[in-house]
Amino acid sequence: MSKLIVHKYGGTSMGSVERIRNVARRVAKWHRAGFQMVVVPSAMSGETNRLLGLAKACATGFGADGVALDAAHATPQAHPSARELDLIAATGEQVSSGLLAIALQAYGIDAVSFAGWQVPIRTDSAFTKARIESIDDAKVRTHLNAGRVVIITGFQGVDSDGDITTLGRGGSDTSAVAVAAALAAEECLIYTDVDGVYTTDPRVVPEAQRLARITFEEMLEMASLGSKVLQIRSVEFAGKYKVKTRVLSSLTDPAMDLAIEASSGTLITFEEDPDGAHTMEQAIISGIAFNRDEAKITLTRVPDQPGVAFRILGPIADANIDVDMIIQNASIDGHTDFSFTVHRNEYQRAIEVLNAKVLQDVGAAEVIGDAKIAKVSVVGIGMRSHVGIASLMFKTLAEERINIEMISTSEIKISAVIADRYMELAVRALHKAFGLDAPAGHVGTSN
Amino acid sequence: MSKLIVHKYGGTSMGSVERIRNVARRVAKWHRAGFQMVVVPSAMSGETNRLLGLAKACATGFGADGVALDAAHATPQAHPSARELDLIAATGEQVSSGLLAIALQAYGIDAVSFAGWQVPIRTDSAFTKARIESIDDAKVRTHLNAGRVVIITGFQGVDSDGDITTLGRGGSDTSAVAVAAALAAEECLIYTDVDGVYTTDPRVVPEAQRLARITFEEMLEMASLGSKVLQIRSVEFAGKYKVKTRVLSSLTDPAMDLAIEASSGTLITFEEDPDGAHTMEQAIISGIAFNRDEAKITLTRVPDQPGVAFRILGPIADANIDVDMIIQNASIDGHTDFSFTVHRNEYQRAIEVLNAKVLQDVGAAEVIGDAKIAKVSVVGIGMRSHVGIASLMFKTLAEERINIEMISTSEIKISAVIADRYMELAVRALHKAFGLDAPAGHVGTSN
Repeated sequence: MSKLIVHKYGGTSMGSVERIRNVARRVAKWHRAGFQMVVVPSAMSGETNRLLGLAKACATGFGADGVALDAAHATPQAHPSARELDLIAATGEQVSSGLLAIALQAYGIDAVSFAGWQVPIRTDSAFTKARIESIDDAKVRTHLNAGRVVIITGFQGVDSDGDITTLGRGGSDTSAVAVAAALAAEECLIYTDVDGVYTTDPRVVPEAQRLARITFEEMLEMASLGSKVLQIRSVEFAGKYKVKTRVLSSLTDPAMDLAIEASSGTLITFEEDPDGAHTMEQAIISGIAFNRDEAKITLTRVPDQPGVAFRILGPIADANIDVDMIIQNASIDGHTDFSFTVHRNEYQRAIEVLNAKVLQDVGAAEVIGDAKIAKVSVVGIGMRSHVGIASLMFKTLAEERINIEMISTSEIKISAVIADRYMELAVRALHKAFGLDAPAGHVGTSN
Repeated sequence: MSKLIVHKYGGTSMGSVERIRNVARRVAKWHRAGFQMVVVPSAMSGETNRLLGLAKACATGFGADGVALDAAHATPQAHPSARELDLIAATGEQVSSGLLAIALQAYGIDAVSFAGWQVPIRTDSAFTKARIESIDDAKVRTHLNAGRVVIITGFQGVDSDGDITTLGRGGSDTSAVAVAAALAAEECLIYTDVDGVYTTDPRVVPEAQRLARITFEEMLEMASLGSKVLQIRSVEFAGKYKVKTRVLSSLTDPAMDLAIEASSGTLITFEEDPDGAHTMEQAIISGIAFNRDEAKITLTRVPDQPGVAFRILGPIADANIDVDMIIQNASIDGHTDFSFTVHRNEYQRAIEVLNAKVLQDVGAAEVIGDAKIAKVSVVGIGMRSHVGIASLMFKTLAEERINIEMISTSEIKISAVIADRYMELAVRALHKAFGLDAPAGHVGTSN
């Protein structure tokens, strides 16, 4: 039986009739080369925002320009129902999927499209952020075996009540990987407007190199730390079900040589991969991740008693504020400083919660914080078996006279919080120190 | 139990956020007055055309402006698949239904929307022109009994394969009447951009009056003869299932008195209606219908033999050309003239078919025709029991020196084909002759 491949195309790749026809020609090439093909498209770029904008306007009576359509009947406090939002938003992928089927047919390829509920892709009932529970492969296999390209809407499924659900922003990546897992696909190719995963952001470090391979654990760290190429849940799915996933460019010529296309981009692998994602020759770390989305908060002189961490973070969680790094140092004379980071947008709210509900309760001295921070991380499976990674990182930052305000580590990454004005400098220095800079004239790593 | 009412809103009524919120306020008024409410919306005006335009462009590679997007890869002969067209087009109503639910919720009304497949509304598999086979009322009743307004997408259903189907242009009227029938609704209110059915087109005859009532048989004749207010299949449905259907304006103030609104527009009734749709006081005929969409064709000196009508019209039907009027007069010396009308767009093709396949076969003298004709009809249940309707019609046309080229009759209508330049004159003369002109200063018939 011929090998099964899943392609996923993002909103930019599906952004116009011309681009949809380009996608069709690319898929047709793969189909004609003998692969069984399943394609998962996103909505045409801009469409999801258009639909959600209409929904918001229908709820409030205010247009996109913020002006009331009919002031006498405006309902500014109203919020659109999540169930109806999903029913509305899901149409974007239904349209792009149907259009892709039509474009494929125009090029002589038998194709059929299915909305998530038709497959069905079953999810829980958490509207706007549903999780996939199961995918029935029977209908899809029947059509594949009949020689058809099968197109499945990204981003959506159906719950046990028969209501349409969506998986949240970027959910089409997750749909594609989940479909690839359910069908035991050979590989899941995520076509996007970047040509792979880089050792760091090329806009910050021009010498950044494309990684031919990255492990899914590294990808998780890189994604959650700000190198946003794939939705993080799709990477988790890929890891859980061992789906070989490749990120590659949709901007190349659809007629390019298939063998070259098939080995382009970045392949997300698993450490167990017998091909060896990390051989002796490869760098110990895979990349430098960074973000400046966070703010740090510290409670000073917290009495070091059992349960104090919960008494600090419980009210924060109750206020629906996500916490990233948490640092509690060893105590001196029965007191410690307790620090954590939150998203910068929630910094003020977190401070208010702490002052109102926590400060007195735990008997801390004061709440201090700083929103002008950045987090810089070195990421790499390789560091597991190498000593000295942390010290090289700290030495490099010290040489640039960059003060480290917080440190946190995991098995495959070390993160440092620094003043945000030093972020680019830190990233460039670390990228060079860890041997990630491309040789002059070199673009991308060899494969 | 409170009475169940179905509202249907057309694309113009749903054409913007502001209008959708007006619809919500109107529906909320009915709901608060104690009615159980089911609402069937069309897609926002323009949306269906936008979607079908995208589909066509994806099939051919030509944009809406007729220019090839990428000439090297255009596929001008390609036609979009009907299955995919339906999957795409059905999203228009899914969006408008979700938006209406959100708008209702913003006004404090509990509301839920369902796509046709969720109800489900089951249809056959004739994509783009499917017919409703059954409607499951269980889910709808559950939500109605919980006090919710239930919104059901117009225009669409699902076939036995689980594929989305659409009912063809104007299909939302049919959806609404079918839903009303399935739920045994008290009444189906079709809100549109006209305020009812008139004795004839007010643009031709300013004295035309709105009919407070019309029987469904008359409505069928009026609709098929060109007074396009309701999709004809919805009228057939209303007649078959005895659904009291009212056509009324969506352009009135949503806050208008409910009792006045509920008796506005035109009610489509059944002859058996004990209220008496046609009492002594009412006019014998209900209206003057007309169109200039047809062309007439005559085969002269056709030998009058058994089977000749089939030998003429068989090849026409094989060419997928619809025939409307058919006239065959008594024969003289074994020959007769055989005439029929076709849509003006198919006139040339019909002439070609006759010359190529029929003329010699049946041994007729020649094929002649005229595309510059109009059909004018008087319609009315009342004419069944009244003599002299035909003679009054012919006398009126004669007084205006209008020649009658063809005549055909049914139980409740008489149609005459005339030269198209006389159409308006004929309609005005007949409207007056049959006593349909409104008294000076009168707008609409009293109720």
